Amino acid sequence: MSTENIFKQVFKVSRLTRSKKFDQQPLVIWFTGLSGSGKSTISDALEDMLIAKGFSTYNLDGDNTRLGLCKELGFSLEDRTENIRRIAEVANLMLDAGLIVLASFISPLKSQRDLVRGILGEKNFVEIYVSTPLKVCEKRDVKGLYKKARSGGIKEFTGVSSIYECPENPYITIDTTDLSVESIVNVIYSKIKTKLNAKL
Amino acid sequence: MSTENIFKQVFKVSRLTRSKKFDQQPLVIWFTGLSGSGKSTISDALEDMLIAKGFSTYNLDGDNTRLGLCKELGFSLEDRTENIRRIAEVANLMLDAGLIVLASFISPLKSQRDLVRGILGEKNFVEIYVSTPLKVCEKRDVKGLYKKARSGGIKEFTGVSSIYECPENPYITIDTTDLSVESIVNVIYSKIKTKLNAKL
Repeated sequence: MSTENIFKQVFKVSRLTRSKKFDQQPLVIWFTGLSGSGKSTISDALEDMLIAKGFSTYNLDGDNTRLGLCKELGFSLEDRTENIRRIAEVANLMLDAGLIVLASFISPLKSQRDLVRGILGEKNFVEIYVSTPLKVCEKRDVKGLYKKARSGGIKEFTGVSSIYECPENPYITIDTTDLSVESIVNVIYSKIKTKLNAKL
Repeated sequence: MSTENIFKQVFKVSRLTRSKKFDQQPLVIWFTGLSGSGKSTISDALEDMLIAKGFSTYNLDGDNTRLGLCKELGFSLEDRTENIRRIAEVANLMLDAGLIVLASFISPLKSQRDLVRGILGEKNFVEIYVSTPLKVCEKRDVKGLYKKARSGGIKEFTGVSSIYECPENPYITIDTTDLSVESIVNVIYSKIKTKLNAKL
């Protein structure tokens, strides 16, 4: 689309105004990992902790956004990338709103995570790799999706019939196999708290 | 897309938790009207006032979202409707984040505004019709778009070569021809303040 007739509106109220009101540094905390690795469980518990500490947050989740914003998209490589792009754009608007955004998406490809990084800007983005091994995720199979994928009931399922590229240099890596949610959340908070409280 | 493998995640932190933190009732204030009618100017000034009064807000604008979330969409009827649908879904996520969302979009068709209403839910949505007449908008022509549209430089320009259906029953109607921004914002605030402060 030609953007020559689109003008970037300059608003009186800026990201800085909104962030100062919330007394926090907006940040996107992006969880990547296999289905069943524990992304949503961790991000939910982390949000609960952040709220208790007085931060203003939002939690974006693949399952939720796929029922609304991205509901016409499927699971082909192209559609999954468009799904991630839209989520990143929403996260970017929420950053602008001054919020700390938690986002849990398999986001299997390095190129997809680079797209997110590009949209948000390196300094506004923390990548957390939930590295729980496939065999553990598959054993959990909370939603019964692995069983369905193995029997051919789901095409292009990450880890089974579709690739997952491990992050090369994530900010934090967590294997949830033998750790409690509480201990994981404490580790993450200790590593990101200076970012959240950075001087505005 | 089949949604049978999509599960609605139940989070510990709910819309109510977030809204209580902000001490406000989340609401989408939707401005509809012609290009140049004053939508963005009013929503900007209203957000400035709301922030000063302690509310937590965000301002969605057609020009801004078209450079990101909706950047591949054009101005055909189909694309404009998809543009509006995505914005409404983003506004819905922001409602869930507890925010008061101001949204300024020409949104020329009743069917588009009904789509928004359907996504957000009637009680979360206030429609403001900025009814400034075409001749006034065209005389202002801040961005030079009417001139361009009249000379054929822009196809499907609302009011010139594309229809605008007036809202039948807007919550507020405002013609900005002879009113100051300050007085308009005061009128709007007086009409919505009970909604913003409704008991959570």
